[in-house]
Amino acid sequence: MALIVQKYGGTSVGSIEKIKNVAKKVIATKNQGNQLVVVVSAMGNTTDDLIALKNQIAEEVSPREYDTLISTGENISAALLAIAIQDQKENSISLTGWQAGVLTEDIHMKCKILDVDSSRIKAELAQGKIVVITGFQGINSKGDITTIGRGGSDTSAVVIAAALNADVCEIYTDVDGIYTTDPRKLPHAKKLETISHEEMLEMASLGAGVMHPRAVETAKVNKMNLHVKHSHKEGTGTQIIMSGEKTQVVSGIATDDNIAKIGVMHVPDIPGVAAKLFGSLAAEKINVDVIVQSIHEIKKLNDISFTVSKDDYKKSLKITKAITSDWKETQIVGDTKVAKISIVGIGMISAPGVAAKMFHALGKEKINIQMISTSEIKVSCIIAEDHLVKAIRAIHDEFELHK
Amino acid sequence: MALIVQKYGGTSVGSIEKIKNVAKKVIATKNQGNQLVVVVSAMGNTTDDLIALKNQIAEEVSPREYDTLISTGENISAALLAIAIQDQKENSISLTGWQAGVLTEDIHMKCKILDVDSSRIKAELAQGKIVVITGFQGINSKGDITTIGRGGSDTSAVVIAAALNADVCEIYTDVDGIYTTDPRKLPHAKKLETISHEEMLEMASLGAGVMHPRAVETAKVNKMNLHVKHSHKEGTGTQIIMSGEKTQVVSGIATDDNIAKIGVMHVPDIPGVAAKLFGSLAAEKINVDVIVQSIHEIKKLNDISFTVSKDDYKKSLKITKAITSDWKETQIVGDTKVAKISIVGIGMISAPGVAAKMFHALGKEKINIQMISTSEIKVSCIIAEDHLVKAIRAIHDEFELHK
Repeated sequence: MALIVQKYGGTSVGSIEKIKNVAKKVIATKNQGNQLVVVVSAMGNTTDDLIALKNQIAEEVSPREYDTLISTGENISAALLAIAIQDQKENSISLTGWQAGVLTEDIHMKCKILDVDSSRIKAELAQGKIVVITGFQGINSKGDITTIGRGGSDTSAVVIAAALNADVCEIYTDVDGIYTTDPRKLPHAKKLETISHEEMLEMASLGAGVMHPRAVETAKVNKMNLHVKHSHKEGTGTQIIMSGEKTQVVSGIATDDNIAKIGVMHVPDIPGVAAKLFGSLAAEKINVDVIVQSIHEIKKLNDISFTVSKDDYKKSLKITKAITSDWKETQIVGDTKVAKISIVGIGMISAPGVAAKMFHALGKEKINIQMISTSEIKVSCIIAEDHLVKAIRAIHDEFELHK
Repeated sequence: MALIVQKYGGTSVGSIEKIKNVAKKVIATKNQGNQLVVVVSAMGNTTDDLIALKNQIAEEVSPREYDTLISTGENISAALLAIAIQDQKENSISLTGWQAGVLTEDIHMKCKILDVDSSRIKAELAQGKIVVITGFQGINSKGDITTIGRGGSDTSAVVIAAALNADVCEIYTDVDGIYTTDPRKLPHAKKLETISHEEMLEMASLGAGVMHPRAVETAKVNKMNLHVKHSHKEGTGTQIIMSGEKTQVVSGIATDDNIAKIGVMHVPDIPGVAAKLFGSLAAEKINVDVIVQSIHEIKKLNDISFTVSKDDYKKSLKITKAITSDWKETQIVGDTKVAKISIVGIGMISAPGVAAKMFHALGKEKINIQMISTSEIKVSCIIAEDHLVKAIRAIHDEFELHK
């Protein structure tokens, strides 16, 4: 008898009809002779509706009360799923985060799960029940309700699966697997049968709608294999497995068009400049993605370029201008019409020339590369947003990812 | 420094605008130098919305899951009120039933509160916070969420007030007090400054929209004075006080038009007949209100008449017919066009002739009395529904309640 943890996201439980379907799927899995724990997100737009209510009072509220409010979304969907399972004549119980023993840090809104006291989950499983657990939430040492940030239900599922020593953690979502690149942008993109945790992490921007990076990282740390599948269609999905088990040079292409670029030109070459700039951005909770620095050898002046999300662009520009206002030669340029394209592959580590092949593909299409950033298993280029689809096609063909 | 418990019902927190107003009121009370605990119901139609969601799956569901689902309504309103108080620069925290230590029986949907472990409430009060607590819900010995039935937030407030040894428990609602009779039916009905717990209990049907009978009973047991006030209007409201403190002969007139009458004529006069009939009705959770039995001395046959809510009428009729099917002479008559009118007053105990005065008032208006039932502080008559308003006016005038 295998122990399976399944996670269903907000769109998978977005209506009563869908909840009934999930109940059917879940029961079928149990009837194959498995023990089953199901982790659910809030129904469709519930969380946004709750935030809208709160916003009628204030935008900024106490994180503790925010968590208390927002966690009700999962309480509703979990109870409804348990009800739907029971209605189909199968034994089930819903547990909130605190009832399931999900213990978190004392901070709110984006806390980490510290531990899972799985005694109650195990007791309910032992009674033959399908245990439905609210994702996204837990309880801290004060007895207050906490949430673990958007997309946190994936992480809940992985942590609960690890605590239960589950055989597999299945992530049900609204796509049928991980693709070599976004199929909406390149119709002949190919679904991957397997991908490593590391590659999946780097594909985060592509995979954002599929799986939360923190969940992938947690799975990696816990050596937990994941299985991403479509919640309402048949199919083999994509397995996210330990990297030792596969060695593809390039697994896929990730893109992100929600970025903006800021260039700080002619920065004095004195120590602490970068620390000051990026420290100030971090203090305002702005997430900086790609950072590139180059030096004009003759003038002893640096150029620093970086990207942020389009949402953070204006705020970032203001902060950057304030910090650099004393430096007379410094010029600031900004551009929101950019996008990032990345190739990801665990095999890249031992395969030279992969980056060059990517640049070649872009060059053939006369696509100008504005910034380059590389990691051991990823090469990212910042290009004009308009060229993104053309770039995807060129790179996909170059690496023959459709094969 | 007084400790005040205030309860706001669903309509009082029915919109964000109203929640903001409640926050203002609550802060004003605190600023008068009081410690404050606020018990809230779910916003307006939230509970009905949740039930509608559930009904899309099944009408009858596991009571445990029902409670888990339905309790989210109060979690939302409590968090929003705490947020609104904080937004008006006052310190506040929301606590769910389990966080507030509200311990209940193990049954669901209509459990009783067994105890309140008020340590956390007291700790938060000691920190100068306005403590907002979800009404209507608690936790049982298994760690499951329970609810205490419709209108249960009143009971929550009273029990919490008693546990904290509060100076007063104020019930804020959408009427400005308790009236001698329903002002919608008799415009010159008079607001009472005080009423005893016992009278308020008997006025339950009139007071249903004002305060839940169980809450009044709990207050009576705990010798807790209550103060019913309008949530968004100024006014003195009505105080519900210990009966020793007042002795009015007739305080008010209660009416209930949501009743139906069933008459079982010519029942054999053998022991156990009534027990069998009302036992069967009780087994189906049908609440029988007035019961009247009379005997035909010559034939040794009884007539038993009783009333149930209009909702339970068909079911009750069916059960009654099934039970009496063996008795050849028995006839069953039913009537849904009836209403109950009652006079209530603690002074009735020591004032003879009160019932006669009521019958006289009805007789003058040629209103036929179909059934009579009396208690120490109440006289109820079942009359034709069409005559209800005329009956209210006649009795109100007879006892000069407008004075």
